[in-house]
Amino acid sequence: MRNPPALEQLVEALRCLPGVGPKSALRMAYYLLQRDRKGAGILAKSLDQALQVVSHCNLCNNFSEQEICPLCASPARDRTLLCIVEMPSDLMMLEQTQTYQGMYFVLMGRLSPLDGIGPRDIHLDKLLKRAQDGKVEEVILATNYTVEGEATAHYVSELLRARGIQVSRIARGLPMGGEIEHVDSGTLAQALLERRHVR
Amino acid sequence: MRNPPALEQLVEALRCLPGVGPKSALRMAYYLLQRDRKGAGILAKSLDQALQVVSHCNLCNNFSEQEICPLCASPARDRTLLCIVEMPSDLMMLEQTQTYQGMYFVLMGRLSPLDGIGPRDIHLDKLLKRAQDGKVEEVILATNYTVEGEATAHYVSELLRARGIQVSRIARGLPMGGEIEHVDSGTLAQALLERRHVR
Repeated sequence: MRNPPALEQLVEALRCLPGVGPKSALRMAYYLLQRDRKGAGILAKSLDQALQVVSHCNLCNNFSEQEICPLCASPARDRTLLCIVEMPSDLMMLEQTQTYQGMYFVLMGRLSPLDGIGPRDIHLDKLLKRAQDGKVEEVILATNYTVEGEATAHYVSELLRARGIQVSRIARGLPMGGEIEHVDSGTLAQALLERRHVR
Repeated sequence: MRNPPALEQLVEALRCLPGVGPKSALRMAYYLLQRDRKGAGILAKSLDQALQVVSHCNLCNNFSEQEICPLCASPARDRTLLCIVEMPSDLMMLEQTQTYQGMYFVLMGRLSPLDGIGPRDIHLDKLLKRAQDGKVEEVILATNYTVEGEATAHYVSELLRARGIQVSRIARGLPMGGEIEHVDSGTLAQALLERRHVR
């Protein structure tokens, strides 16, 4: 006794989603076919639509429906600053701070040899071209402070500095509301090392 | 700064999957568009295909691509026994035991007022018709031993017995390899109450 072939095929297809194993995929398939056929139809259409129209911005490499995304096309942005982030969600977090008016470049990943993601997968050729457009004066590395994010920042900064581009890295230190008693020692050590003179 | 509309639409559509919230949906959408466009295309096709061809067996109510599923159509099965299960996965577990040769009826759910699932949602009219086909002699209730499964079994057994149909319930007791020291007291109490004479 097996499930109908089309159902088995759906379960198999659902497993391409990150974090979805055989059991979750089966549960999702049952749920969609039994309780939310409308949602399943909308999902199929949305996937097709997104695959058709969503590509990457030629400048910042973020997801975009246009060749140049609205942010890169905006005349209000400062073209001398280029901030490098790992993912579009990082870009959005930075935008929410409302403290940065420069441009972005989205790597769409991080160097992660264990996952088979090397320099070629994070669009470094596109980044080098972007950073050498003659307008960019400083590149800000805003990758995560994880092992992979740090390795990526190091690799990218070597590449850029070899081409005479000024590179900076976002600061490490205590978070807002952080208490010295409770912060981890790695963060505290960095906060000490990167202390700033009070003027 | 927002994601492109087609991407936002995809994120929204992914949220129809059970257990997928806004953050997971965003992660899934990024992953599909960035790393597995082929998988996304296959998923869209599989959804469409499953929605088109997968319906319910007229007899057992399980998912099926035919009007009568292969199991119900099989001449090798015992038509005097009808086993009621909650989900297709339960049916498959029972089949794997290779100890049951009768027919099935799949409720596709369980009574669960908190989730808004009442008697009308678990196809009891179809079940009553099925159980009164003139061949079924015994209905075996194989719903889960959870609160909802027990309530469902109770409700269904009342319905069936009112129509003079013989009803049984799968046994409760210690699981295979179960040790009295470690089993929960509810199970142990049931095992005592439902003890069998040794012949």
